[in-house]
Amino acid sequence: MTRVMNFAAGPAALPQSVLEAARDELLDFQGTGKSILETSHRSPEYDAVHEGAQQLVKKLLGVGDDYHVLFMGGGASAQFVLVPLNLLGDGERGEYVVTGSWAKKAYKEAVTVAKTSGGSAHVAATTEQDGRFTRIPEPQSWDVAEDAAYVHITSNNTISGTQFALYKGIPECAAPLVADMSSDILSYEFDAKKLSLIYAGAQKNLGPAGVTLVVIRQDMLDRARADLPTAFNYQLQAKGKSLANTPPCYAIYMLGKVLGWIEEQGGVGAVQKVNEAKGALIYGALDELSDFYRAPVAKDSRSLMNVVFRLPSEALEKRFIADATERGMIGIKGHRSVGGIRVSTYNAVPLAWVEAVVSFMREFAKANG
Amino acid sequence: MTRVMNFAAGPAALPQSVLEAARDELLDFQGTGKSILETSHRSPEYDAVHEGAQQLVKKLLGVGDDYHVLFMGGGASAQFVLVPLNLLGDGERGEYVVTGSWAKKAYKEAVTVAKTSGGSAHVAATTEQDGRFTRIPEPQSWDVAEDAAYVHITSNNTISGTQFALYKGIPECAAPLVADMSSDILSYEFDAKKLSLIYAGAQKNLGPAGVTLVVIRQDMLDRARADLPTAFNYQLQAKGKSLANTPPCYAIYMLGKVLGWIEEQGGVGAVQKVNEAKGALIYGALDELSDFYRAPVAKDSRSLMNVVFRLPSEALEKRFIADATERGMIGIKGHRSVGGIRVSTYNAVPLAWVEAVVSFMREFAKANG
Repeated sequence: MTRVMNFAAGPAALPQSVLEAARDELLDFQGTGKSILETSHRSPEYDAVHEGAQQLVKKLLGVGDDYHVLFMGGGASAQFVLVPLNLLGDGERGEYVVTGSWAKKAYKEAVTVAKTSGGSAHVAATTEQDGRFTRIPEPQSWDVAEDAAYVHITSNNTISGTQFALYKGIPECAAPLVADMSSDILSYEFDAKKLSLIYAGAQKNLGPAGVTLVVIRQDMLDRARADLPTAFNYQLQAKGKSLANTPPCYAIYMLGKVLGWIEEQGGVGAVQKVNEAKGALIYGALDELSDFYRAPVAKDSRSLMNVVFRLPSEALEKRFIADATERGMIGIKGHRSVGGIRVSTYNAVPLAWVEAVVSFMREFAKANG
Repeated sequence: MTRVMNFAAGPAALPQSVLEAARDELLDFQGTGKSILETSHRSPEYDAVHEGAQQLVKKLLGVGDDYHVLFMGGGASAQFVLVPLNLLGDGERGEYVVTGSWAKKAYKEAVTVAKTSGGSAHVAATTEQDGRFTRIPEPQSWDVAEDAAYVHITSNNTISGTQFALYKGIPECAAPLVADMSSDILSYEFDAKKLSLIYAGAQKNLGPAGVTLVVIRQDMLDRARADLPTAFNYQLQAKGKSLANTPPCYAIYMLGKVLGWIEEQGGVGAVQKVNEAKGALIYGALDELSDFYRAPVAKDSRSLMNVVFRLPSEALEKRFIADATERGMIGIKGHRSVGGIRVSTYNAVPLAWVEAVVSFMREFAKANG
């Protein structure tokens, strides 16, 4: 079998060694004579998987036992609702930094929730211009109420290809910081202890689709609403260690394996170095070949996870995608809402694939420029 | 490898051929050079999996295009909330037939939801006695308001081992019938067209944990609230074909494979025959050996999916479980809330395993009776 170079935005490439390990034990999990897919969530062997993954999340994020690690269903989209449902009380205000389509969706869902909770959702900053987002706003420019319940940011914007460089420092906020880190969690080192709540759909940097990671600090949890139904209640989910009802076991198992792989690479710092090298390579090529390729994102807002660019015409973009596919590079079509090209370079995308795509970019520009 | 006989209540045994097929293509899904675990939910190859599974659900349930098939996250527990959230409007009443712990939980969550929606949840019938449930109540005895928004039943009660015999006929109700069929969906033929909404966590009869099937009829969907956030909104989920955001792709893929396996067996009718044979075998033994084993469930309410029974003492139950484990039979410990023994005999549990457990039951009774 020839493995394709998968640059999809998510569900995205997983480490090959993780897939091989999953395959090898698919019918017989650790000699138990059954698959992990058919293993009870109340069994000691599943417990070890579940708790192991929770511990590894804390270790890799560098947070202590004042943080709770939840595994939930419904994707990050469900968290767009659960964050305000749990944390936006009567008369309280949630601040939203709108830096992309998903951030905007999070804000809109909060507005819907606020209608019944008596709270309100407010745009603290937006970088939308003519329906596009090409930069991250400076925290100094945010319009944040002093007593805001939280400030919500989207650390990486998958569609527009912009990223908060949290590794350069966390925005200073009086209010608790909530971050949707679906597309860049554990891709670089940062001070997670400054965040009160992190959530992330797994299908980009953490594993397959089907589980959403929620990491919440005790003081934030204490402020969450206590009277919500169990499935939507952060306090009860934390109390039940995400085992109040059957969790998405297999997705959690795979997430644990991916976290183990990050450790094998030398930890988040080592992974970050590779991500920076990949970014330098591809953005370097884009800058060098700027007569042909156009990178719309402001330089200081460029994402190391999703590299978006345009070609001189849509016809050339179409040919670029077709030619790339022929060379075994897939998933590079830009999101249907913005068009163009998007090369996603999550943790599991090796440097060699990025070298291949950059070499193809040079070749294509030469032939068509 | 020796495959254990897995009688767990869920996550439960899956057909071996399904697991083998999943293993064989884990690294290379249909020659695409990547795993289904890393395949975009916007790709044609995933589309075929997703839509194929939706079509197969309809075919096996025998319903037409006036039904929508949704794949959601969060387990059946999330549906405990979403059913009243979507369907219990201001001043409306949801009727709950409380036949077990999960049915009671569904009712309680509806009470919580109703507090803010202006609706109400009402116990139409309960068979709880001293904290136990041992029978299904006759529909004639239900106290249902004529203009109820819906009547909610739990078709099979995993913990107490009772089951509505829907194959003998659907309860006649003026109000729309909503059924939590998590633990017996597609285990027998019944007239699904008489139900307005069916939901089921996959991890018993449909696949691994991580996806919840929701099947909703158009007229019920038309009555659902339109102003809920996307992730919790039946109308928007149906409109987006459960692809408004990333669904739990791998669990859906496995669910599709399990449905394909049901077809291979000859369809739901053929599977039902095997389930009836398994039930006859194990309940026959319990009745025959009633000096030793005690089957607490009323005969006309016995579940073909979860067979619960007691031994003369807890010490003997402990030894029974240990001896069974030695013989490669696992997952037979009763739910911690009720104790005793529970043998779950879902579709994927072959007749041969039930023969083995029955043979062991005879042997154990003889040695310890």
